[in-house]
Amino acid sequence: MADKGRGILTVVSGFAGSGKGTVMKKLVEGHDEYALSVSATSRSPRPGEQEGISYFFKSREEFEKMIADDELLEYAEYVGNYYGTPKDFVFSRMDEGKDVILEIELQGAMQIKEKYPDTLLIFLSPPDAGELFRRLKGRGTETDEVIEKRMKRAAEEAQSIKNYDYLIINDNIDECVRRVHEAIQTAHHTVRHEAELIARLEEGLKAGIR
Amino acid sequence: MADKGRGILTVVSGFAGSGKGTVMKKLVEGHDEYALSVSATSRSPRPGEQEGISYFFKSREEFEKMIADDELLEYAEYVGNYYGTPKDFVFSRMDEGKDVILEIELQGAMQIKEKYPDTLLIFLSPPDAGELFRRLKGRGTETDEVIEKRMKRAAEEAQSIKNYDYLIINDNIDECVRRVHEAIQTAHHTVRHEAELIARLEEGLKAGIR
Repeated sequence: MADKGRGILTVVSGFAGSGKGTVMKKLVEGHDEYALSVSATSRSPRPGEQEGISYFFKSREEFEKMIADDELLEYAEYVGNYYGTPKDFVFSRMDEGKDVILEIELQGAMQIKEKYPDTLLIFLSPPDAGELFRRLKGRGTETDEVIEKRMKRAAEEAQSIKNYDYLIINDNIDECVRRVHEAIQTAHHTVRHEAELIARLEEGLKAGIR
Repeated sequence: MADKGRGILTVVSGFAGSGKGTVMKKLVEGHDEYALSVSATSRSPRPGEQEGISYFFKSREEFEKMIADDELLEYAEYVGNYYGTPKDFVFSRMDEGKDVILEIELQGAMQIKEKYPDTLLIFLSPPDAGELFRRLKGRGTETDEVIEKRMKRAAEEAQSIKNYDYLIINDNIDECVRRVHEAIQTAHHTVRHEAELIARLEEGLKAGIR
């Protein structure tokens, strides 16, 4: 096939308990066209976390300078720390032809879509509310209070699924990975993404190229 | 997986010489979720053509009554004969869950997209003008004059590719079939197509279903 051109930017969001992490892991391991975005944060590194792999670790001042210089695709403050997505990392990977995946939440997804309408927004969910509850419960690591909070949060987040491009149900991990993969690969063929190819085709035909 | 719900309506167009016919044949033979639409026409059956398979054969009066009764998704008159797509056939297949494919031209595609914006429009093309010429020439069945006409027509049609959803290049038949398949299957997961599922999910979470 011809050169695939610039990569696609995809945001993947989902309820806590949607299995998002596992899906992303399998997707990236199974296909070398993907690159996961690395976030910047102003929080301190935890044991085992590595600069440029876990996060780009920044001081509060450095982070605020990145905000001021418009170097972030999106950012948010969460319990006193900044988290955000550096543009430079994402765009340079896309220029290399990588399909870049951001695993971020609703608000960040909306910030990015507004600035970059070609971004693909995918929301992952278990098939229904009962299944979400069973998965959260089944982890066995969270208190009932935490589970209650997550379910309430999911109820709020559900209101915004309609602002995404795709809702992909995760009731079978391999199927879900395949569907996410197909959605992203299909985005390579939108007429917007193929605008250059279309222009070349038009020109060649007009010039009567044989 | 859960019930796939209503089928997707897809229009496939492409230059003469794009290999469209072969792609459609392979797609439908390889996957039982597809149904090809059957056109109605006012022209007379040719030897070997079968009612309801090749076409639905209609008299001119019958066809004009179908137009008047808004029973067609699109229609056109071509060298004195009507050709069109009966709604009833397409919608009943979609209700059965089939993904229905219409192989029609530009004007018909635009008519349908205007009335049914959820219709997926796919345009197939060889990778460039030179390859299109070589394929038309390589058939060995057409005069230079006919080839010249087809190339001119392709130059006109190319102006409208940007009104389609996807441009899929056919330089490898199996890859092309796979891409068309993935584009159509991905359309099952748009938030518009999954509106009912989203509403059910929202409700379940709101009701605190466990």
